[in-house]
Parts: sequence; structure tokens; C-alpha cells
Amino acid sequence: MFDIKQYLQEQRQLVEEALRQYMLAAEGDFAAHIETMRYSLFVGGKRIRPILCLTAARCVSDEPDVDMLLLPAACALECIHTYSLIHDDLPAMDNDDLRRGQLTCHKKFGEAEAILAGDGLLTYAFELISSEQFLGLSLEVRLRLIAVLARAAGSLGMVGGQFLDIASEGKEIPFALLKTIHRSKTGALITAAVQMGAIGGGAVAAQLQALTEYGGAVGLAFQIVDDLLDVTSSSKQLGKTAGHDAGQGKATYPAFFGVEKTRALAIEAAERAVAALVGFDERANPLRALARYIVSRTN
Amino acid sequence: MFDIKQYLQEQRQLVEEALRQYMLAAEGDFAAHIETMRYSLFVGGKRIRPILCLTAARCVSDEPDVDMLLLPAACALECIHTYSLIHDDLPAMDNDDLRRGQLTCHKKFGEAEAILAGDGLLTYAFELISSEQFLGLSLEVRLRLIAVLARAAGSLGMVGGQFLDIASEGKEIPFALLKTIHRSKTGALITAAVQMGAIGGGAVAAQLQALTEYGGAVGLAFQIVDDLLDVTSSSKQLGKTAGHDAGQGKATYPAFFGVEKTRALAIEAAERAVAALVGFDERANPLRALARYIVSRTN
Repeated sequence: MFDIKQYLQEQRQLVEEALRQYMLAAEGDFAAHIETMRYSLFVGGKRIRPILCLTAARCVSDEPDVDMLLLPAACALECIHTYSLIHDDLPAMDNDDLRRGQLTCHKKFGEAEAILAGDGLLTYAFELISSEQFLGLSLEVRLRLIAVLARAAGSLGMVGGQFLDIASEGKEIPFALLKTIHRSKTGALITAAVQMGAIGGGAVAAQLQALTEYGGAVGLAFQIVDDLLDVTSSSKQLGKTAGHDAGQGKATYPAFFGVEKTRALAIEAAERAVAALVGFDERANPLRALARYIVSRTN
Repeated sequence: MFDIKQYLQEQRQLVEEALRQYMLAAEGDFAAHIETMRYSLFVGGKRIRPILCLTAARCVSDEPDVDMLLLPAACALECIHTYSLIHDDLPAMDNDDLRRGQLTCHKKFGEAEAILAGDGLLTYAFELISSEQFLGLSLEVRLRLIAVLARAAGSLGMVGGQFLDIASEGKEIPFALLKTIHRSKTGALITAAVQMGAIGGGAVAAQLQALTEYGGAVGLAFQIVDDLLDVTSSSKQLGKTAGHDAGQGKATYPAFFGVEKTRALAIEAAERAVAALVGFDERANPLRALARYIVSRTN
């Protein structure tokens, strides 16, 4: 039986080490600014997006070190994710004081500093993938990685989803809009993580398509569980404010369907993710286990 | 005699058309968000950075349409510049109500919306250069353009400079720190604009170095004149709040040197820019004229 918990722990360590290697050092003229980015980047986190990227690459490639080649891209994904949390937590957005059990970036350093920490991390993601440090992959692959990441993180993806999320607060919205919000705000970057792994690993078109389906379904499962945990967990368990969605008048899966049906929908999405991998061999077992793990996670 | 005013007008029109062609349309699920980006992008602007990029390309290339090839990169520069203005104007930063004679993005649409407009434009810049629309240049050149842009716009450049600027408000700072702020906050992106043109136009190493020097000196001249106009012009002339720097307790060239000496330093920087072009033929005349024009501008 594949031990997903041990796998995730090992992979997280690999990602942490890479982040420490690739992230700017807090020194020189900009030390104080870089410190604000490092604080949010290293305060913790499951590193799910980088892990999905590395894991997807290994499931299409026979190259044993393909994950090493992709580490800068995996780190870029985490920079983008971290920036999005910093900006989402701002007073003008979700106004959260805690994240991963610690002060949010603006509570720790100030609002202007947090806006700039986010801007810096977002920009650094693209510096990482375009830099000369990142030589193991072809120019064409690197450009495709940048294009996929920029599109998923941008106005037709994550940023657009956050806008819709904010605009929908306190309103009754149709379920179709909730789906659009989830798909763009969370789903797009998770799907991109899987796609970037696939592209970096040399996936053929049919593999890329199957992995894109997998990514979409896993992203949905992930967000449904997020909605669920916000209702069913304590702030201590989550490391951020529980009951936050209801407090902000946000539409969520539990608000539409209740807790039990929502749980069933999360499991259904995870199984759809697994089903998308039907044509893959045992190298895809970690991805299969990851999809099911995401549904069972408690924070 | 080269007519710089007419040249700038023609070039600005070229850039405006390209921006309209390449910018996302305000339609679909994300129309309201895209509208916030378009508002700030099309509210006006001198388009100096894109024009520097196109002009630098023509000064090293014999290819008559080299500027056409570089238009997406030129637009990316303007997206980055516009995002930086949106975020700088936020209440947590410079807290400005007016920009180019119109309401700033957060005054018009709200603070969360403005933060996201900035995030969207920043991300879109990288989508533009990596997208398949942008096929005229080699993969290698496109990756180099992304690397130069990301580095200049990021934590060791524009974002880091803005952090230092905010951190220095209301403090007495040494002149060396003011120089660092100017070089990173304004100079880095202007230098990158010239470098991107040079790289896209196929500059050899010595040309790239000379144009980098030109860009640094022009960036400095530009920022010194900005400082100067803030003291000597009315809000109406500027289209933004005049006397803003002093009101915010910002260090500026006039605060260090007085108005007359500051004017002399701006002219000196522009002449240093022109001197950097000594090895170039008459194709560099627009760049020479641009450096001198920047010192004489009134808004």
C-alpha cells in the first residue's frame, strides 16, 4: 500500500529545501523587504501545488531526476500561491489576522509592506522560471511553463476568481457562479501545477489532456474540502479563522448543500480525478493517492 | 532637426493601438475585473517605457519592422508600469485620489478591486511575452526579455525601491539611499525598457552595455524631473497631486539641492545618457532627442 503521508512529508522537505535554495536572501539594500516575503513563504504550508507539479512530471517521465529539473517551476508555483494568500488576507480583502497559526503578513509588517511582499513574490515567480539558474529544460518548455502559469494566475484565473469572490460577498449567488469562482480562484493554479509537471515531464497531448482533467477535479475537491473545514473545524486546527466564510457572507458548498452532501461531492470529485488517470501505469499511484488524501485532510 | 514631439505622438499612437489589440476585452465572467485594469491602462499616460523599448530596438537593428515584433514586450512594460501606479496610489501607500487628472483606480472601483487590478496587470505582462501571439522573436530572446523584465520589476528593482521609498517617509535619509530608491523604483524599469529593445533588436554585447548605461542615465533624469515637477508645477498641470512629496515627508532632489541645482543635475544626467550613445550612428538620434526631451517635459 502506497504511504501517502510519508510521501507528502518527503516531498514537502524537497520543496522546502528548494525554496531555501532559490529564494532571495534577506541581505543588501532590500533586506527588510525580502524578509517580509520570506516570512510568509516559510511560515509553513502544505506545498500541495509544488508537490502536484513534481508528482505529475514523474508520472509521465522515465527520467529519474525529472523532479529536480522542475524544482524552480515548483517553487514559482509556491511563490504565486503565497502572494495570493498575502493579498487575500489584506484588510481591503478578507481582513484576516491569522494564517497558519501565525500573524498574517500585514499584521506582522504593515499593509503597504504586505502589498509589496505579494507583488515581489508574484514577480519573483517569473524571474525563477526565466532565470539562467533554470537550465535543465528546453527553451520551449520553459516558455510554455511561463505561459501556463501566467494564464492560470491571472485575470482569467486566480486573480479574476478572487475578484468575483469579493464581489459576491453578502449576496445570494447562483451555484453556477460559485463553481466559476472555485474553478478560477483555486482550481486554475492547481490545474496549472499539474499541467506544468506534465509539460516539464514531456507529456504527449493525450497525457496532458488527462492530467488537465485530473488537475481540474483535484482542484475542485480541494476547494470543496476547504469550504467544509471552514464549517467543521476550529480555528486552532485550521491555523486561520474558522467560520470565516459564513462571517463574510460567502457562498460555499456547505451553504448550498449542507455538510453531508458536500462531503459526498468532494469524494465524487476526487474519484473523478482518479478516473482521469485510467490510462496511466503505476507511476501515477502517487497522484491517485494524493486525490484521495486531499478529501480526507483535516487542515 | 529631428522633431521629437511629433515622434513621440506617432509612437504613442502605435503603442495605444497595440495595447488595445493585446489587452483582454472586458467581456465574459471576468468583465468587471478586466474593466478596472482597462480603466487605468487607458486613462492616459506618456507611454515612455514602451517608446524607449521600440526606439532602442530600431537603433541596433536594420530590420524595418523590428518595432512591430517588439510590440507585445512594449505593452508588457506598460502593464507593469500601470500596475505599479495603481498599487502606489493605494491608501496604504501614497494615498492619492488623482492620477492623470482622473480618479485613481481604488477611488473609482474600491480598494480590493484596485489591488486585484494591479495583480492582474502584473501577471498579464508575463502572459503577453510568453503567449503564442508573440511569435516573431526567437524562444531565447523571449526568455531573456522575461528575465530582464522580471528582475527589473521585482524585489531587487521596482518593488524593492517602492518598499524603501515607503520606509523612508518622514525620515532624514542620506543621499546615497535616495539614489538607491530612484535607481530601483524608477530607474530599473526604464533601464529594462531600453535593454529589452536592445535584446529584441539583436544588440551585440557592447551595444547592450552602452544602451544599459543610456537607460540608467535617462531613468535618473526622468526621476529627478519628476521630483522637480512635484515642487514647481500645479496639480492641474501634473494631473496628480502637486507638492505630494513634501506633504508625505519624502526625500527628493530639490529637498537636497534646491530647484536650480536639481535642474542642472537633470541636464547632466541627460547629457550622460547622450554620451553613452557615442558609438551609435544616426539611428540613435531619436534616443538622443528623447533624453533631452525628458528634461524639458512639463508633466
